[in-house]
Amino acid sequence: MSPGDDIQITDGKGVFFQATITSIDSKKCGFKINTEKKIPKKNYHIHIAIAPTKNADRIEWFVEKAVEIGVDEISFILCKNSERKVLNLERIEKIAISAMKQSQQACMPILHPLQPFNDILKQSADQKFIGHVDSSNPVHLKAIAKPNKSYLVLIGPEGDFSNEELNTALQAGFEKVSLGENRLRTETAGLTACQTLQFVN
Amino acid sequence: MSPGDDIQITDGKGVFFQATITSIDSKKCGFKINTEKKIPKKNYHIHIAIAPTKNADRIEWFVEKAVEIGVDEISFILCKNSERKVLNLERIEKIAISAMKQSQQACMPILHPLQPFNDILKQSADQKFIGHVDSSNPVHLKAIAKPNKSYLVLIGPEGDFSNEELNTALQAGFEKVSLGENRLRTETAGLTACQTLQFVN
Repeated sequence: MSPGDDIQITDGKGVFFQATITSIDSKKCGFKINTEKKIPKKNYHIHIAIAPTKNADRIEWFVEKAVEIGVDEISFILCKNSERKVLNLERIEKIAISAMKQSQQACMPILHPLQPFNDILKQSADQKFIGHVDSSNPVHLKAIAKPNKSYLVLIGPEGDFSNEELNTALQAGFEKVSLGENRLRTETAGLTACQTLQFVN
Repeated sequence: MSPGDDIQITDGKGVFFQATITSIDSKKCGFKINTEKKIPKKNYHIHIAIAPTKNADRIEWFVEKAVEIGVDEISFILCKNSERKVLNLERIEKIAISAMKQSQQACMPILHPLQPFNDILKQSADQKFIGHVDSSNPVHLKAIAKPNKSYLVLIGPEGDFSNEELNTALQAGFEKVSLGENRLRTETAGLTACQTLQFVN
């Protein structure tokens, strides 16, 4: 591209700008803004709290795809059975920015650093869910999520939530939900939760 | 594992077998079948026909995730704007088998080798869709897919379908559908189509 070319840019906070390049070199690009377009706020909010996978590629893939499809907030949780105890948040942020731009969105999701499982339970939301299936509850997320709400969904690590984590979450007002009949990997469960909530809205 | 251990195996054709290992070495494993359980056939059929992505990882990822979530048939199509003209079907098959086992399913999806775009148009299905959005049709797949049907959804390459391909598909009875408000990558569009049809059923 060169001076005089039109570009679309975003501040990641809900505004698109139509602009024209004024100067360009290998390090920076000058532009003047012609018009701005504010994207109306959605009337629901999807927050996925997920345990990073052993293989970093898989959680990065989750972030890319969740952002493309549409997610508002992502938390990373450290569980008893987590095989990965560290997270490169800077890399995750770059992937999220790239996915936001690639999918032509104007809102950058909120990304939180890795936190202990118990801390996430203090977060508020209209509807709070924990992805877990046992013989007592095969209720699918799509059956109990209501439209136009804020949601928080917890997705466990490869070794699943511990019984203690599950019980603590239930006591904190989280509801157990299934995400389908097949056993899903952590990152697939996270994306399916996200897609389910998009469908409900 | 060692002789005497119980295992669950599948023939990939809808049957699970509960078996006990009788002998084991580094190359093979003998077992005797104790019980078999036939999984009832679903009353819908999801067939996704997708253009392989320039980056092979992305189409392999699509196969893994589509199988985990549930897909019955995958075709790979060669389009005018395809940047990838070859496909390692053997590798794709291994990924699909692994995803089927990992997600504890008993049915192996049908996988077809790469074929020219026009050939896929001859395939039959109750409802046939082509993923394409223009100013004339923002109809979401979820709004027009009916439950309990066989579906065929075409997903284009990075450079999208050509006008000629789009018109040929429309003449062959395919309906244009959107997969959401965001611009999705090929592999994300394929997975979203799959997940949408799962939700409708």
